[in-house]
Amino acid sequence: MLLDRERELRERHEISFRITGVATRRLGWIADPDGLDQGALLALASDDLPSLSRTEPALNGTPAPIGTKGPLAPHHPAPHNYVRDWLSAARADVLLEATALNVESGQPAVDHIRAALEHGAHAITANKGPIVHAYRDLRDLAAAQGKRFLFESTVMDGVPIFSLFHELPAIRLEGFHGILNSTTNVILSEMEKGLSFDESLKKAQSLGIAETDATHDIDGWDAAVKTAALITVLMDVPVKLEDISREGIRGLRPRALREARMDGFPYKLVCRAKREGSGVRASVRPEKVMVGTPMGSTSGTSSYLCFNTDIFPVLSVFEGDPGLYATAYGMLADFVRLARSDVFLG
Amino acid sequence: MLLDRERELRERHEISFRITGVATRRLGWIADPDGLDQGALLALASDDLPSLSRTEPALNGTPAPIGTKGPLAPHHPAPHNYVRDWLSAARADVLLEATALNVESGQPAVDHIRAALEHGAHAITANKGPIVHAYRDLRDLAAAQGKRFLFESTVMDGVPIFSLFHELPAIRLEGFHGILNSTTNVILSEMEKGLSFDESLKKAQSLGIAETDATHDIDGWDAAVKTAALITVLMDVPVKLEDISREGIRGLRPRALREARMDGFPYKLVCRAKREGSGVRASVRPEKVMVGTPMGSTSGTSSYLCFNTDIFPVLSVFEGDPGLYATAYGMLADFVRLARSDVFLG
Repeated sequence: MLLDRERELRERHEISFRITGVATRRLGWIADPDGLDQGALLALASDDLPSLSRTEPALNGTPAPIGTKGPLAPHHPAPHNYVRDWLSAARADVLLEATALNVESGQPAVDHIRAALEHGAHAITANKGPIVHAYRDLRDLAAAQGKRFLFESTVMDGVPIFSLFHELPAIRLEGFHGILNSTTNVILSEMEKGLSFDESLKKAQSLGIAETDATHDIDGWDAAVKTAALITVLMDVPVKLEDISREGIRGLRPRALREARMDGFPYKLVCRAKREGSGVRASVRPEKVMVGTPMGSTSGTSSYLCFNTDIFPVLSVFEGDPGLYATAYGMLADFVRLARSDVFLG
Repeated sequence: MLLDRERELRERHEISFRITGVATRRLGWIADPDGLDQGALLALASDDLPSLSRTEPALNGTPAPIGTKGPLAPHHPAPHNYVRDWLSAARADVLLEATALNVESGQPAVDHIRAALEHGAHAITANKGPIVHAYRDLRDLAAAQGKRFLFESTVMDGVPIFSLFHELPAIRLEGFHGILNSTTNVILSEMEKGLSFDESLKKAQSLGIAETDATHDIDGWDAAVKTAALITVLMDVPVKLEDISREGIRGLRPRALREARMDGFPYKLVCRAKREGSGVRASVRPEKVMVGTPMGSTSGTSSYLCFNTDIFPVLSVFEGDPGLYATAYGMLADFVRLARSDVFLG
């Protein structure tokens, strides 16, 4: 994505960049402050990835130490020293963090981001775990360091939802609902058409939408973490994952799904949040939604978010059929946000 | 709106303000650099406005000179001196411009904004005329003066559409379509229910949606100017109003409207734009849209915009039933954008 948009970044936004470090589980920790060869990196990266999947294929991965390709290290204790050494070796100004979701702790992403901010680099992540597990800490650390912590790829494949609310000052978000998980959305549609659960899951995996281990999608964890991230940042209410009432799609039988679709009220995995007193009541669960409504029309990899605010009673955003590059674009857009803000020079 | 959000501006955004000048056709030009009494202004303003209408009730108005309440001056030649004297007397840092649309020339708003920027104030407008008639000039003048020219209220009642695209760097907007005029949307719905054109128009006027002279809405001018503003700013293609193929709703008969609704394809006044070569092909005209699609579901004062970009094939924004304060909120949000950008101090 960086290579693809290099010219536009330079000509339209007056931004140039150098990739001085790359770390993946299979490549290890690579750094060169004079800049790495981008073509060679791309070739290495395609060797590294078995297929073009939207997210890393396995969870909780930690890169091997610099220069080695040894077996995976356990992610606790946190690989602070590797990350710090690598950030120093790369003389990093910005870290782009794209490890996979760890629902329980947000690690190792939280440690990666903390190390970057302490090193004096801005941090961009596509991983929603740190928002739920460490948002206030990381936000405050970034402020104290005069750096920025950006995460626009975490909820809606790079559609700038958090930035949109930055552009809605002095507004009160009362609640929201929407459809934020593609894997379950694809599985439900395929089951309505007659496939079994396992066949539908395999189809979602073959399309590059579902991970090899899709448990987090199917049981509603992915959608719950996104819901918690929106509540934490946009409603400024700290919420724990266990406070979100959560039910996945395992209990739905093909026959019930087909009948609901025929009745004009197909099932969708719906996220909801609503202020209640000083807190927020939130849920992720299968709901019957009416055909012809925005939620009823959100199919495949599309997603939808409807916000209720004191100024705009209904303000909704729909993203239709994003390509596999949308999340990467979200990180690129965060990078441009950084680069054009004065804080970059600080 | 400023009074209503004063506390949030101060506490959440660390912004305080003083109103040092007000100009309306009936009040004339009022200025006091030490600040005007806001309560008294509100009382005067409610005397001034015969009803709570969304826009100024008549077109091409020019305020009377300072301190007088004389008859309306013709808007050509432009009231440069009044505006300049008033800006100086008020020692204005920011001008909030909210005159009504002049389709032909964008005046007097263009002159007001130019005077503000030359005076050394930022300019915020809710008037779309200047975007179509003088966007590049005003943008370049603002840049040369180190000031900003903001206009988020012009297209979608304050929903931050232009800001959204500021947050979508290095993206290519290929085209868009949507429903952007409330008056025609309300009239079409009422005619489907059995009212005549005149009765429907009166209803829209009694709801405070349509202006006394609704010609610009009914003949598609309002929607065409919004379409041209989006093309000019977001697609960076200078477009003239006469380049937009335009057809209003006068030709639609109640019976045809009712039949189309019964068939499940109601008529809507649809705006469209699409890149073609180095230009853009654009239209505003009544189209039959399918019930259950986002356009088919856009009723009353709601509006809808669907963008096609190279990253997000479909990215759409829906605004449901905004209140009469939404446009004012858009200007307030522009004011916050200014106040928190470093350029304010420049």
